[in-house]
Amino acid sequence: MMNVHELRGRLSKAGQEHLLQFWTELEEAQQVELYAELDAMNLEELNVFFQKATAGFSRPQPDSVDARMEPVPREVLGSATRDQDQLQAWESEGLFQISQSKVAVLLLAGGQGTRLGVAYPKGMYDVGLPSHKTLFQIQAERILKLQQLAEKYHGNKCVIPWYIMTSGRTMGSTEEFFTKHKYFGLRKENVIFFQQGMLPAMTFDGKVILEEKHKVSMAPDGNGGLYRALAAQNIVQDMERRGVGSVHVYCVDNILVRVADPRFIGFCIQKGADCGAKVVEKTNPTEPVGVVCRVDGVYQVVEYSEIALATAQRRGPDGRLLFSAGNIANHFFTVPFLRDVVRVHEPQLLHHVAQKKIPCVGPQGQRVKPDKPNGIKMEKFVFDIFQFAKKFVVYEVLREDEFSPLKNADSQSGKDNPTTARHALMSLHHCWVLNAGGHFIDENGSRLPAIPRAANGKSETITADVNYNLKDANDAPIQCEISPLVSYAGEGIESYVAGKEFHAPLIIDENGVHELVKNGL
Amino acid sequence: MMNVHELRGRLSKAGQEHLLQFWTELEEAQQVELYAELDAMNLEELNVFFQKATAGFSRPQPDSVDARMEPVPREVLGSATRDQDQLQAWESEGLFQISQSKVAVLLLAGGQGTRLGVAYPKGMYDVGLPSHKTLFQIQAERILKLQQLAEKYHGNKCVIPWYIMTSGRTMGSTEEFFTKHKYFGLRKENVIFFQQGMLPAMTFDGKVILEEKHKVSMAPDGNGGLYRALAAQNIVQDMERRGVGSVHVYCVDNILVRVADPRFIGFCIQKGADCGAKVVEKTNPTEPVGVVCRVDGVYQVVEYSEIALATAQRRGPDGRLLFSAGNIANHFFTVPFLRDVVRVHEPQLLHHVAQKKIPCVGPQGQRVKPDKPNGIKMEKFVFDIFQFAKKFVVYEVLREDEFSPLKNADSQSGKDNPTTARHALMSLHHCWVLNAGGHFIDENGSRLPAIPRAANGKSETITADVNYNLKDANDAPIQCEISPLVSYAGEGIESYVAGKEFHAPLIIDENGVHELVKNGL
Repeated sequence: MMNVHELRGRLSKAGQEHLLQFWTELEEAQQVELYAELDAMNLEELNVFFQKATAGFSRPQPDSVDARMEPVPREVLGSATRDQDQLQAWESEGLFQISQSKVAVLLLAGGQGTRLGVAYPKGMYDVGLPSHKTLFQIQAERILKLQQLAEKYHGNKCVIPWYIMTSGRTMGSTEEFFTKHKYFGLRKENVIFFQQGMLPAMTFDGKVILEEKHKVSMAPDGNGGLYRALAAQNIVQDMERRGVGSVHVYCVDNILVRVADPRFIGFCIQKGADCGAKVVEKTNPTEPVGVVCRVDGVYQVVEYSEIALATAQRRGPDGRLLFSAGNIANHFFTVPFLRDVVRVHEPQLLHHVAQKKIPCVGPQGQRVKPDKPNGIKMEKFVFDIFQFAKKFVVYEVLREDEFSPLKNADSQSGKDNPTTARHALMSLHHCWVLNAGGHFIDENGSRLPAIPRAANGKSETITADVNYNLKDANDAPIQCEISPLVSYAGEGIESYVAGKEFHAPLIIDENGVHELVKNGL
Repeated sequence: MMNVHELRGRLSKAGQEHLLQFWTELEEAQQVELYAELDAMNLEELNVFFQKATAGFSRPQPDSVDARMEPVPREVLGSATRDQDQLQAWESEGLFQISQSKVAVLLLAGGQGTRLGVAYPKGMYDVGLPSHKTLFQIQAERILKLQQLAEKYHGNKCVIPWYIMTSGRTMGSTEEFFTKHKYFGLRKENVIFFQQGMLPAMTFDGKVILEEKHKVSMAPDGNGGLYRALAAQNIVQDMERRGVGSVHVYCVDNILVRVADPRFIGFCIQKGADCGAKVVEKTNPTEPVGVVCRVDGVYQVVEYSEIALATAQRRGPDGRLLFSAGNIANHFFTVPFLRDVVRVHEPQLLHHVAQKKIPCVGPQGQRVKPDKPNGIKMEKFVFDIFQFAKKFVVYEVLREDEFSPLKNADSQSGKDNPTTARHALMSLHHCWVLNAGGHFIDENGSRLPAIPRAANGKSETITADVNYNLKDANDAPIQCEISPLVSYAGEGIESYVAGKEFHAPLIIDENGVHELVKNGL
């Protein structure tokens, strides 16, 4: 089975023969494992990737982009706050497209919940909502609801196919999870899993790094690995076969994500765009968010770490930051654009190089945890293809309505953790109830203000500290969760709540309205 | 000494004879204490306050203000972001006024650090900056620096008198602290302490509440107690005697506060205003911040809890919130305006009523901790007097430059705590260094990006999670602190930093530049 001699020859030719340096020390099972891994590796391609990527890496870049950046012009920008008169038209267009089964969603779910402190895919995480729904379930139910809405408005049965990109590390558990939960009510054939590629970590001089004596240090090839994976697994053909015309691509960890957002889809289509990005306004210059802008006339995302502070601080006459289009990894692509990207453009893109501290084995085979960067990781980014768009548009939405990513454990950071995600969703749903004419009352039957001082429904005890009136309501929002099966984005809940008074926690789901009375109240 | 009979008669006449109900059970020292407290109380005035305040309280209010609110018109608004071309002129005007000793600052410091978890005044708190300076010291040094800047530009020796309002609870410890620290370099005669009044808590039917058998439940009368305190202690006369023309009033807990901000002072004076408010832009409708606006044609702060969500969500054609002038308790008053307020207007103002859970003694003398509101607290707010302004203006500044309040303990809330305050100051000072041409480098000598990914100077270890590029730099800002004695608002540090490279932590103070190398680096 194993032709080690032949493998050694190929490795040697590619300058990677060190990968077998511990071969004779390995147990047989380890030999089998390492052989399989190395045998499957396209060494020539890998070396080309490395050479091209690091050739670009040695060019001086950080200072030059500032002068070449231009903000997104108003004419390609749609805004949920500045174009309120057009939202209805965009939404109708989007729902029509959906009703014709022309819209798919594509989920980037290759990451594990490492920073979150769990060993399973993030989509399986329960942030602690009253319903204990996972991110996957929330997204699935939004898809279901949108299909229903489109059917209701246009009378067509329709499908929103859901493409889910996993990685080698998450494929098995993700598929199992969907099977176990019966695809959350979706039809199995409309949920399409495919797998992101991996690349080995390499030293600065191009040697593949061993993580253990019998194991290469591998990592997914960036969310831009999407395009290579689309090609390798014939996903664009599948879209074409289904008659899909446009795709909404998004990341798994945003609890507020409006999958296949009809407004975003409709805006992009009415603008005749082949590529679009949904953004939130960056309001603080030092906020670490990449911004969508033009560089030398073509659109791209400029990472916050690439620009000078003075550039980040530039403002227009309206006082807003000039570079305010904060990337939230929500993109629109037409299928013809994706096809061109996959066939023509993407293979020419260079990998980005990130210097990393990569755990490895030393010359004597000992485990080494480096304290400075000892190698690189090569990745592509999903937005690398913006530059190939013929007509690129940007759609700005409100952060509090659409963006709250789950990245960290509560214990690790006060930002982007399960608590902030849960609170963001419940605050939004609280607003939905108020805007539909519902009210919340406290334990004495008094109506709570829309923006409550102590949002847990208790009045404050007396304190001497009354010097300010700036507080944070998100510290403890009113517990309120509305199932996506009831409402996609706040619509259609009047019949449940208008003119009514509720005690929190409040859940509205397909079985009706539930007020969960906590112990002690 | 004690005429209990006479006191009982007065109490009885005022309907407050229950305050002596435990008299015979008290020890002698307790009797002395209670007698003194009750004897000093102006019972007739208190009853009038209660009647007027609660007459207003029973009127239905919450729904009515929404329809009567109008946003601040552009012509009375100065903006640090939209009027950048005028900032220099405003600053010059302000520095000129300061150089003529015509500007005073007034600090509201009546609150204790209860929520912060300490038993001493907030101004004495050390948020853990490299220098370990307290809030009082930071503010004192900013005053010193401004005096120097004004002298430098105009050649006059000048004084910025600092009026500090404490409360009964904080007066002693505050004065001691200043004495111990030799007034942080200020002259003792230019730091003027005065004391805020207290009012008892009352039941809903107007009975003063006993906290213990021998002790009335007392609390400061709100930060609007300022005006009564100014009158009682002849503070306006002191200002007039010193030739002060305008006053900057602010709260103790904002670590970024620009005391006597020349731009704000200069803007207000050039606009011919007698009253002005510094605000930050409210960007999220549900942010719990009071907004400056006009109601029935007069300016006031509308509390977030008074308005409907739909009002908070209203937006102008530019997409901004219509009611976006977020109050941060930074006010400008001319001394003639303050004199009129103290003499004429303020005594006519009603107290606001807050329903509270007030610990008290029950009919049998037992301690009671109520679980629903059992009484009220009466307060005035510092901004209640906006309505009396002849010419009111609003000055909008950037939150990240000027506002980071200290309210909570780290353990209690992720917002407005010592960590966020410390990080806000160090992030700002980091920006100052970059904008003055300095750079930070990591342990390998590489320059750190302006907006660092992992701002503690360490490169990231390898992870699979590369799906996003939206992170929060404030999680661990570069440690950088510049003494107010070196720079008031970022000016004048080029000679220290331009073209130079630093390892964090970096301190720049009156003794020069210090790079503190942490253990292990």
